[in-house]
Amino acid sequence: MIRPGCTIGILGGGQLGRMMAMAAAQLGLKAHIYAPEENSPAFDVAADVTIAAYEDEAALVRFAKAVDVVTYEFENVPSETAATLSAHTLLAPNAQALAVSQDRFLEKTFISGLGIAVAPFASFTNEAELAEAVEKLGRPAVLKTRRFGYDGKGQVMIRPETDPSEAWAELGRAPAILEGFVPFEREVSVVAARTASGAFAAYDLCANEHKHHILDTTRIPAGVSGATETEAMRIAKAIADALDYVGVLAVELFLVTENGSERLVVNEIAPRVHNSGHWTLGGATTSQFEQHIRAVCGWPLGSTARLGRVEMTNLIGHDADEWEQILAEPGAHLHLYGKAEARAGRKMGHVTRVFPEKG
Amino acid sequence: MIRPGCTIGILGGGQLGRMMAMAAAQLGLKAHIYAPEENSPAFDVAADVTIAAYEDEAALVRFAKAVDVVTYEFENVPSETAATLSAHTLLAPNAQALAVSQDRFLEKTFISGLGIAVAPFASFTNEAELAEAVEKLGRPAVLKTRRFGYDGKGQVMIRPETDPSEAWAELGRAPAILEGFVPFEREVSVVAARTASGAFAAYDLCANEHKHHILDTTRIPAGVSGATETEAMRIAKAIADALDYVGVLAVELFLVTENGSERLVVNEIAPRVHNSGHWTLGGATTSQFEQHIRAVCGWPLGSTARLGRVEMTNLIGHDADEWEQILAEPGAHLHLYGKAEARAGRKMGHVTRVFPEKG
Repeated sequence: MIRPGCTIGILGGGQLGRMMAMAAAQLGLKAHIYAPEENSPAFDVAADVTIAAYEDEAALVRFAKAVDVVTYEFENVPSETAATLSAHTLLAPNAQALAVSQDRFLEKTFISGLGIAVAPFASFTNEAELAEAVEKLGRPAVLKTRRFGYDGKGQVMIRPETDPSEAWAELGRAPAILEGFVPFEREVSVVAARTASGAFAAYDLCANEHKHHILDTTRIPAGVSGATETEAMRIAKAIADALDYVGVLAVELFLVTENGSERLVVNEIAPRVHNSGHWTLGGATTSQFEQHIRAVCGWPLGSTARLGRVEMTNLIGHDADEWEQILAEPGAHLHLYGKAEARAGRKMGHVTRVFPEKG
Repeated sequence: MIRPGCTIGILGGGQLGRMMAMAAAQLGLKAHIYAPEENSPAFDVAADVTIAAYEDEAALVRFAKAVDVVTYEFENVPSETAATLSAHTLLAPNAQALAVSQDRFLEKTFISGLGIAVAPFASFTNEAELAEAVEKLGRPAVLKTRRFGYDGKGQVMIRPETDPSEAWAELGRAPAILEGFVPFEREVSVVAARTASGAFAAYDLCANEHKHHILDTTRIPAGVSGATETEAMRIAKAIADALDYVGVLAVELFLVTENGSERLVVNEIAPRVHNSGHWTLGGATTSQFEQHIRAVCGWPLGSTARLGRVEMTNLIGHDADEWEQILAEPGAHLHLYGKAEARAGRKMGHVTRVFPEKG
């Protein structure tokens, strides 16, 4: 059993690892961060640090033996890394969650296998099958690499005028799928947690706005119908249960409005704390970071109650230069990730604003 | 000017330093903890650590040069330490705040000099003066060492049957004062912050209950009259202004109720974040730890708005063994300090409960 005083190992040294490490410390745990990059943001709040490649088996074994459980901040943990860690300690979320979320084809197959709507998709292995897929799904469609896509990377739109074969070449002819266009009105997400014993708790549905393919603002409540909110929670729970999931999970969904009625289509899942859950830090009774630590340790989940109407805005690149104005704003919660260089597109921090709920 | 990315030096590696370090990290600062004890709780969340005695001048100079500002978690910072640090970097709160709060005689003289009520007191340097002081202040009275008293340590009651000279001998005949008994109904405290430019913000008055001379529970609101609450804020501001104070300050007061009317008597001040302010972490918009960091950096102060009716209970010694029941309680915020050994009287953590405000 994991108790206060134990050590939680975290793969990845970015802002998610950093905020998880602080949540662990709050609960009396030690955090040990494993990351390849020197000066990783999470190192500043970690009791222990390993700087090594994710492929360094000896370092992984030492790390696994030094901690009581391992979790991670990113879904692209190599399967060999997960296997090595699992051989020596607990890994949560499990290897299946990683495998499914790392590969768009497996992910969509898995989710649609649960009877949950996903965007229409087709796999292909050669030009002829690609042409056939475009024929079948129509245009516009999106060509997406099966692996390593995030924040709009690894994607090309197939417009009426696009040559699909050239589009695939742009992606280096990496294994990919074609996704049919979903005429969505908005993007929403569920951030939820599940424990090994099956306890499940979800935060209220979030509405997400992106800029340049990067999350810009999350708003809660999402402003959908009660039935849609209930359905989103059902979807998240079905996915978490089917994966025997342990930890915080995000399910990104498209909200499609047709003839005044709403339906949900799963876009993708993230087996980790998620940017669209950052609002919970200061905006909910229990933050997603604390919730993840509780789940991973097998502890009772915390209350997901919302403290008001909440808006979370990412501070990307030089947005973070506004830190002093944000500090001067009554009630704004500023979070900066301690990154030295404000490169364009880099997530430097976020700000959460909590307003009294409209009556 | 101190900006995100700068380093805040913290003297002291206990739970207060630990929670300050996490608040600093949240705002994009690096925390460098200076403490003599290996395995100090704050080390687990610090970007950098110096393990050295507070009297180690070379280590202090290196520390001062490595950081942008120094603050501390305890008022008994030796004056030579403060002087060494001040010679090489900013020190906040300032040396005057330390000097005044380290010595009960200076403290009471200073506060009463501001026209603010303190317990009647008398200083003495020999047995004859002590006898005279007891004669003057009556019994019961309390003999208190001028320096290094906390949590009831360094105090002896002078009851009707007590031999004052024996009582003083119990304190090793250390420099001491005699304090007249204040027939207080309750103990309350103000936790407030002031910046170098004179900005001031106080949290709502707290009511504090002690067990065995250690804070047990803090409740907010304190349940005093509006006039008393206003007067408490005025007292805290007058003290902070007079000290040209920078940072979070706690003023502990006795609430005396006579013939249905309330008056306040200052017990002591603490030039630091304070146990009676722990409720602000999860119970107020800005925690006292973040507020202290903001003040010390010269940044705008945050909102002190309360999120409901709040109760904070210390987890002393084996109280912390109840961690799992507390985690299972909806809405309870558990904070554990990462201390290995649950010794009797040792502050192991605290729990904050926020309830909807009564209408």
